[in-house]
Amino acid sequence: VTVYLVGAGPGDPGLITARGLELVRGCEALVYDSLVAPELVEEARGATFRIPREGLTQAELNEILISLGREGLETVRLKGGDPFVFGRGGEEVLALRRAGLPVEVVPGVSALSAVPGSIGVPITHRGVSAQVTLVSGQSAGGEELDFGQLASAPGTLVVFMGLARLPAIIAGILAAGKDPATPAAVVSAGTRPGAASAQGELNAIVELATGLASPALLVVGEVVALAGLLERPADLSSLAVG
Amino acid sequence: VTVYLVGAGPGDPGLITARGLELVRGCEALVYDSLVAPELVEEARGATFRIPREGLTQAELNEILISLGREGLETVRLKGGDPFVFGRGGEEVLALRRAGLPVEVVPGVSALSAVPGSIGVPITHRGVSAQVTLVSGQSAGGEELDFGQLASAPGTLVVFMGLARLPAIIAGILAAGKDPATPAAVVSAGTRPGAASAQGELNAIVELATGLASPALLVVGEVVALAGLLERPADLSSLAVG
Repeated sequence: VTVYLVGAGPGDPGLITARGLELVRGCEALVYDSLVAPELVEEARGATFRIPREGLTQAELNEILISLGREGLETVRLKGGDPFVFGRGGEEVLALRRAGLPVEVVPGVSALSAVPGSIGVPITHRGVSAQVTLVSGQSAGGEELDFGQLASAPGTLVVFMGLARLPAIIAGILAAGKDPATPAAVVSAGTRPGAASAQGELNAIVELATGLASPALLVVGEVVALAGLLERPADLSSLAVG
Repeated sequence: VTVYLVGAGPGDPGLITARGLELVRGCEALVYDSLVAPELVEEARGATFRIPREGLTQAELNEILISLGREGLETVRLKGGDPFVFGRGGEEVLALRRAGLPVEVVPGVSALSAVPGSIGVPITHRGVSAQVTLVSGQSAGGEELDFGQLASAPGTLVVFMGLARLPAIIAGILAAGKDPATPAAVVSAGTRPGAASAQGELNAIVELATGLASPALLVVGEVVALAGLLERPADLSSLAVG
């Protein structure tokens, strides 16, 4: 194998996997997303090439990965989060395989759970949520979200998105019948320096999130009310433990 | 902080986070799930206590964590997968906080994406799936699954479960109207030594999965048809740690 697709995790450089870090440290070429922590890019000290992905189209990126692989360079494509959770990792694997290059995927910690977790929200909790629905608020394929289906899904809803899409998404879920009092949170730059968040009822969350920056993650569901878990356990005396 | 809840990842010891591995290596007490790789338990060489979770009730486990924390021992509670994805991490955090102990959660790579990824299945893929629904097939709270809702959800369905529950889950989804020709896969011991899987149409998957062992993960959706995308890693146990 010469090309590795490695998940860098949600932002905090300590959340890359041990295997991923070893590959970054040993690679000859690194191609990295703009959201990858600078500390991880620095770990690729021995690399001849360190190429930011920013500004490249997906097709240009694929061509660069293929060229590096054909040169026989140990290449790490370092991607934010997990390559297979809205990371377009499948497209990069497919392009490399079509070019006859072997490729290995090293999974990463997804923002899905780590970012809600960073504000004390477990996406599942016994007796509170036993189901998680994950969507992207700005689908690469341009598909429209099925708000009726999302509003009726039990448990926790997590949306990866840019904040510009937040008002439309909240309006869509509310119009489809989701209880306006459902607890919700928006987390900006979760696990990164400058992380910030807003919490409140669904029908107030757009206003509460004013001033937060993209990228952001929206989490909707009763688990958000557990956000005090780390700080205010006395408020949660009704929850089952053990 | 004296007690850390650390996600060990899906099985392969190389898939723990760099931060998690550092904490395991430095801890004075380790309490670990039965599915945690023995290589990771070995990393806690300096620990005075290495306690398997197996055979303990959740209440007994909580008491042990509280006792270790009160002794002032640097304690790592090493959990399979991610603590907040069907890991009951929230319950352990709550128990520790009620006892007045600070606790930090270090997320892990969830089986959610890593296990389908280990057989070449990306849980999202542009133009194929832009939504993921995750449920546990044996909810700790005993809730029944809403098969109608699961059958109508677009995109990819992932179910964590014991294999004994597979026939009832497939029957439930099919009875609720899911297309019997939908691609499906069952992965047993994903990313671990002895990993095995079955793939086929939804209405044949129970028979195809005969002989596989628990724990297992069921993935249903068109993304399963992308499974040829990746070569399966030849020897998962050979992955280096650290």
